[in-house]
Amino acid sequence: MEIKIIKNILAANEAIANENRLELQKRKILALNLMSSPGSGKTSLLDKTLELLPAAGLKSAVIEGDIRTTLDAERLARHGAPIIQINTDTIGGECHLEASMVRAAISKLDLDGVDILFIENVGNLVCPAEFDLGEDRKIALLSATEGEDKPLKYPLMFSVCGDVVITKIDIESILDFSSENAINNIRQVNPRAGIIRVSAKTGEGMGDWIALLQKWSCEKKADAGLEIL
Amino acid sequence: MEIKIIKNILAANEAIANENRLELQKRKILALNLMSSPGSGKTSLLDKTLELLPAAGLKSAVIEGDIRTTLDAERLARHGAPIIQINTDTIGGECHLEASMVRAAISKLDLDGVDILFIENVGNLVCPAEFDLGEDRKIALLSATEGEDKPLKYPLMFSVCGDVVITKIDIESILDFSSENAINNIRQVNPRAGIIRVSAKTGEGMGDWIALLQKWSCEKKADAGLEIL
Repeated sequence: MEIKIIKNILAANEAIANENRLELQKRKILALNLMSSPGSGKTSLLDKTLELLPAAGLKSAVIEGDIRTTLDAERLARHGAPIIQINTDTIGGECHLEASMVRAAISKLDLDGVDILFIENVGNLVCPAEFDLGEDRKIALLSATEGEDKPLKYPLMFSVCGDVVITKIDIESILDFSSENAINNIRQVNPRAGIIRVSAKTGEGMGDWIALLQKWSCEKKADAGLEIL
Repeated sequence: MEIKIIKNILAANEAIANENRLELQKRKILALNLMSSPGSGKTSLLDKTLELLPAAGLKSAVIEGDIRTTLDAERLARHGAPIIQINTDTIGGECHLEASMVRAAISKLDLDGVDILFIENVGNLVCPAEFDLGEDRKIALLSATEGEDKPLKYPLMFSVCGDVVITKIDIESILDFSSENAINNIRQVNPRAGIIRVSAKTGEGMGDWIALLQKWSCEKKADAGLEIL
């Protein structure tokens, strides 16, 4: 009984996710679903990204997911990008975002001219992996502070995500964290994952990250154009 | 429908949790449920704790909860304490421990002479908060690397836990993490929380932590004695 209902929930979610995907496709907006443990640096990465993107000629919008508080949206507001905060606490305290929440957020955001929509999921390395939001890419963050073993211990997240951003690499050496070991562990659960290493604090790796966003956005626009033909 | 079934799951869990509680009560074993984000240092805290406890005259056992891998149990095995690994991946990939899993683990562990049973939950700052395991105390870990705002963003976890251990305090200054701000945030959601600061790496605060465990174990034995009278 429980399993059947969970399947129904996921099927209903999938249908709405596909609507979101079509809507974003029409607008040629690249949608990225950022997922990680609490405190892995999703908001710090976004903060630095929003600072650098305008110079790369890209306009962004943000959906911030949290159980409670608008701290993250407030922190990012200074960049002037359209931003909306979802608080799952007002819905049922969900530990993840669902497609219906993203649909409601999309309808409220001013997406005119936006190239990239960042969706920052609730901090949770487990449940968000199961919910399609209609994004183009699922991206997992793994901070150097969390330890090299996390991909092996949370394999679903690291296998559903096409790309992994290793964050906080500026303090790797202090933490005895080896990116090489972490990358080997990511490859064990997801041999084809794209992997990038960044420090939002020092800026190391941020150039590569921005270049990747440019490439994805460009591909998205080319794909969207093809489908309209 | 969904809500009703979730309520039934929680009620069934509660019944088994109470059985666990009675069983542990009979044996005068203090049971602690350690919860936090992935990578907050639950296993590191346990590693150091198991090293220090024998000198404090206390014998411990450990239930390790992970979605997959036996890495944590292997890491702690050198201390010689009875230890059992629960992998939720073999059950349904649950993002939290449930009372039934703990019951099965208790039945397999050699608890003779054990004073403290540590239950290391799955790394997740959301869902484990909802499941009573039959423990005496729920303890949340908050690592300096996660940021001061987490108690506000994950209020359920920090309000159900009677005590909070702030970990990795040796790198606080590198991270611009203020324990004072973190403590204020914990107090906002849980004014009566016990709060302790430790570094499993340098040992700072570990003496206080061990003293606290001694106090709780002592109280548990006194309480258990009273109920038998």
